[in-house]
Amino acid sequence: MRFTVLATFSALVAYAWFMIKVGRARRQFGIEAPRITGDEAFERIFRVQQNTVEQLVLFLPALWLFGVYVSDPVAGILGLCWTGARVLYATEYYADAKRRGPGAALTILLALVLLIGGTAGALLH
Amino acid sequence: MRFTVLATFSALVAYAWFMIKVGRARRQFGIEAPRITGDEAFERIFRVQQNTVEQLVLFLPALWLFGVYVSDPVAGILGLCWTGARVLYATEYYADAKRRGPGAALTILLALVLLIGGTAGALLH
Amino acid sequence: MRFTVLATFSALVAYAWFMIKVGRARRQFGIEAPRITGDEAFERIFRVQQNTVEQLVLFLPALWLFGVYVSDPVAGILGLCWTGARVLYATEYYADAKRRGPGAALTILLALVLLIGGTAGALLH
Repeated sequence: MRFTVLATFSALVAYAWFMIKVGRARRQFGIEAPRITGDEAFERIFRVQQNTVEQLVLFLPALWLFGVYVSDPVAGILGLCWTGARVLYATEYYADAKRRGPGAALTILLALVLLIGGTAGALLH
Repeated sequence: MRFTVLATFSALVAYAWFMIKVGRARRQFGIEAPRITGDEAFERIFRVQQNTVEQLVLFLPALWLFGVYVSDPVAGILGLCWTGARVLYATEYYADAKRRGPGAALTILLALVLLIGGTAGALLH
Repeated sequence: MRFTVLATFSALVAYAWFMIKVGRARRQFGIEAPRITGDEAFERIFRVQQNTVEQLVLFLPALWLFGVYVSDPVAGILGLCWTGARVLYATEYYADAKRRGPGAALTILLALVLLIGGTAGALLH
């Protein structure tokens, strides 16, 4: 399962980076916990992390179904593409919320390919 | 693990549907990212997705513990009931926030049965 | 995998407790769904749950990678420490948002140790 593990690692390292950015942005923009609003630039950084949580709960089970029941290397490659799509989403969203679309769409598409492929693979196993 | 996989698939397809509804609601109610408030109907649609993330992090590990250590078909049946409870929760919440209770309670109850049963099964294994 | 299962169980039981506290706090502070703001004490209770979701998506995959590829008992011990760090985080945050730092830092540190160790273990397997 080396490729699936590597894809999991890369996705979670990207996520940890988005998380650390929120902590820094709290100090930079003076948004004290428990507040999560008050500055549009902070809110963009916060939403990148939140949206990545929303996507990880779909992606990680789908990745592992595909890795276990279809192909470890293909799961790994699609999973690394997912991380790439997330980094694209984040860097675009940090710059301008209107530019977050392509990265967001690619993220969901890859997760659905992994989910449908992994489920089909498990049922035909 | 066919039944556990099918329950995972059904839960994540329901979740993907809740997620797509948020994207549409952003356009319909004119709530531009990164904002997540400003219209009560939008907020209900958004909270259905968010609450489903909050439940999935409990449900998915519990489902798989039960499927692996107790019974794949029973996990599958309880997992499909969980998806049913989530769809009930969502359709009621979309209509009126006050009606979200029964679906929410049933969701948590099923997840706790899977968690306690799966953990007991693993320890007695 | 008994120790890894027990650590999963303890983390999810703590999380379920944080979740139940949010439901009670909605009634206590009169914050009706879908609202998630309006009283600072409610917001602290809500953020403890939300932040635990944000940490669980990192912790649970990392815990299982470590448990499967490195050591089940060590994963179990580090995982139980993670739950302890989360309970510290929650009780401190409930009292005063400014005191949430140590529990939050310890949570992330333990998850990163599990993630890096588990990934290294899988690649050397």
